[in-house]
Amino acid sequence: MTSERHIPSELHLPQLHAARERVAPYVVETPSVRWHSGRLLSVLPSGTEVWAKLELFQRAGTFKPRGAMNVMLNLDEQARARGVTAVSSGNHAIAVAYCAGQLGIDAIVFMPKVARPHRIAKVEALGAKVILCDTHSEMFERAEAFQRDQGRTFIHPFEGPRTLQGSAGVGLEIAEQMPELDAMIIPIGGGGLAGGIAAALRQLRPGTAIYGVEPEGANTMSMSIAQGNVLQRETVSSIADSLCPPRTEPFSFGVCNALLDEVVLVDDAALRRAMGLILSDLRLTVEPAAAATLAALCGPLRDRLAGKRVGTLCCGTNIAFEDYLTVMADELNSSL
Amino acid sequence: MTSERHIPSELHLPQLHAARERVAPYVVETPSVRWHSGRLLSVLPSGTEVWAKLELFQRAGTFKPRGAMNVMLNLDEQARARGVTAVSSGNHAIAVAYCAGQLGIDAIVFMPKVARPHRIAKVEALGAKVILCDTHSEMFERAEAFQRDQGRTFIHPFEGPRTLQGSAGVGLEIAEQMPELDAMIIPIGGGGLAGGIAAALRQLRPGTAIYGVEPEGANTMSMSIAQGNVLQRETVSSIADSLCPPRTEPFSFGVCNALLDEVVLVDDAALRRAMGLILSDLRLTVEPAAAATLAALCGPLRDRLAGKRVGTLCCGTNIAFEDYLTVMADELNSSL
Repeated sequence: MTSERHIPSELHLPQLHAARERVAPYVVETPSVRWHSGRLLSVLPSGTEVWAKLELFQRAGTFKPRGAMNVMLNLDEQARARGVTAVSSGNHAIAVAYCAGQLGIDAIVFMPKVARPHRIAKVEALGAKVILCDTHSEMFERAEAFQRDQGRTFIHPFEGPRTLQGSAGVGLEIAEQMPELDAMIIPIGGGGLAGGIAAALRQLRPGTAIYGVEPEGANTMSMSIAQGNVLQRETVSSIADSLCPPRTEPFSFGVCNALLDEVVLVDDAALRRAMGLILSDLRLTVEPAAAATLAALCGPLRDRLAGKRVGTLCCGTNIAFEDYLTVMADELNSSL
Repeated sequence: MTSERHIPSELHLPQLHAARERVAPYVVETPSVRWHSGRLLSVLPSGTEVWAKLELFQRAGTFKPRGAMNVMLNLDEQARARGVTAVSSGNHAIAVAYCAGQLGIDAIVFMPKVARPHRIAKVEALGAKVILCDTHSEMFERAEAFQRDQGRTFIHPFEGPRTLQGSAGVGLEIAEQMPELDAMIIPIGGGGLAGGIAAALRQLRPGTAIYGVEPEGANTMSMSIAQGNVLQRETVSSIADSLCPPRTEPFSFGVCNALLDEVVLVDDAALRRAMGLILSDLRLTVEPAAAATLAALCGPLRDRLAGKRVGTLCCGTNIAFEDYLTVMADELNSSL
């Protein structure tokens, strides 16, 4: 891991504050809570203090509109009139549909046929057109065709300075809402959220260690960091499907590579246990991705962060309750 | 309903601010969120704006420690040394155990044998002694004996100026966190929470209409207001067991009678539907009492508050997940 701490000029504080102000009419400041009771505190070494940022109360259910909206607000009138397109199996699709709807921009979203019906319905209810595809490559090919033929702007789920400027808003709020932390843990899908938050905290809270967390079966950022470059995977697999993009991209990879202290891994069983803690202590039924930071705190980071002040993040919650019960069946039988 | 707006001197703003400061080290400021998406907005007339105060993130899981702590902090050293006692089937018991534990006060709590095991376990885990009783009258008789014989202070679940000063903290936070509301809806058990919040809002937000809500099967405050005096019921019944004390008491009744614009009723089916909305939109598994204000907004107050700015309140969440699934079985099958 590099010890270099270069922050791209697009992510300097004035740019982050400007982006926050730009998207403010369309997103909410989400609350943070101190984890002051419940099962978690018996799982962790005594004296460990934990905060959780509840970004799942964001509009469209996840942090995703922060970045997508910042991208769309930076489009000129002609580009807005030509519309946007996106590829996503869930949270990004919902966010793009929400943002486009707010701005009166036409949106076509390519989703896999295996996407959860619940999520497809949400995208359509928000006014975007959904085109279901059989394969990953079909989604991207068709999205490219729409960009080429109709001049639509492709809204990337995690890449680019505008996207990271938007997601950095989570970091600005964390710096305001939580005390000076010893460590902040951030989930990594493609690195757009982690990179944005890390950029904000490195500048505002230089004393805070920043850890990323990936599912074991989707450790694409870890592998990219190890080899020093972006990469594309054949297969990735985790119950935290929102953390499973099969590739890294240059800008978000570069920021994560420069600014994260370390990326740790959690397996699906650890994600389920963390979901159980969030249910019993905070009463929230969250999707697996939203439990990743807590799983990291209870697993690979547990002893290192003993007695420290730690920030965690519930990044989203677009899971149908019946899917929640299915994912959690064993965990609920054994532990609640 | 009286049109008189007399606020007892114990509940004037300086007293409320002092109580808030007194209990601040032991309770948290809970967040409020704007209800900006999801099924609720399709249920309500368009233009209705809804906020929810998430008091379920309070320490011990409900608003109850705010009042109980204010009472205990006002005890002198001798009284603290003699200990406290309380009668409760759930949330108040947990709150008393929490507060006593924080202050090093010995607590004996009388609970009915039929109380949920989950709640009894919480009380014991917090360090209070639990004595299980067969009947309601047995609980009160034994608690009285402990007051008489050991000089213990009885911590009332909802009566008295100190209790209302504490719960008024919820109202102070509402005034800070939400915009100027057209209406605030508050759940009524014994009226300690409703009276405290109403006292704060009448002084800080005179333009806000204040509605109380009771379960149909536990409409003791409504009946008391109708007859102009406190009363004791033989039986009360609702799935919102936290809203089911079988009597009203003079101080909290007087405040509610003077300060609430109206008390409306909701039935168990409406509570379940509101719990379903809270689950699908906010992902929270709350106990029935915490859904009462939303049930009122979707039911008896729906048309009157069309297009208005409305505050609701999730007052607590001490329900085991298996109990939640049992209560919600039909609702989950039909609507999610």
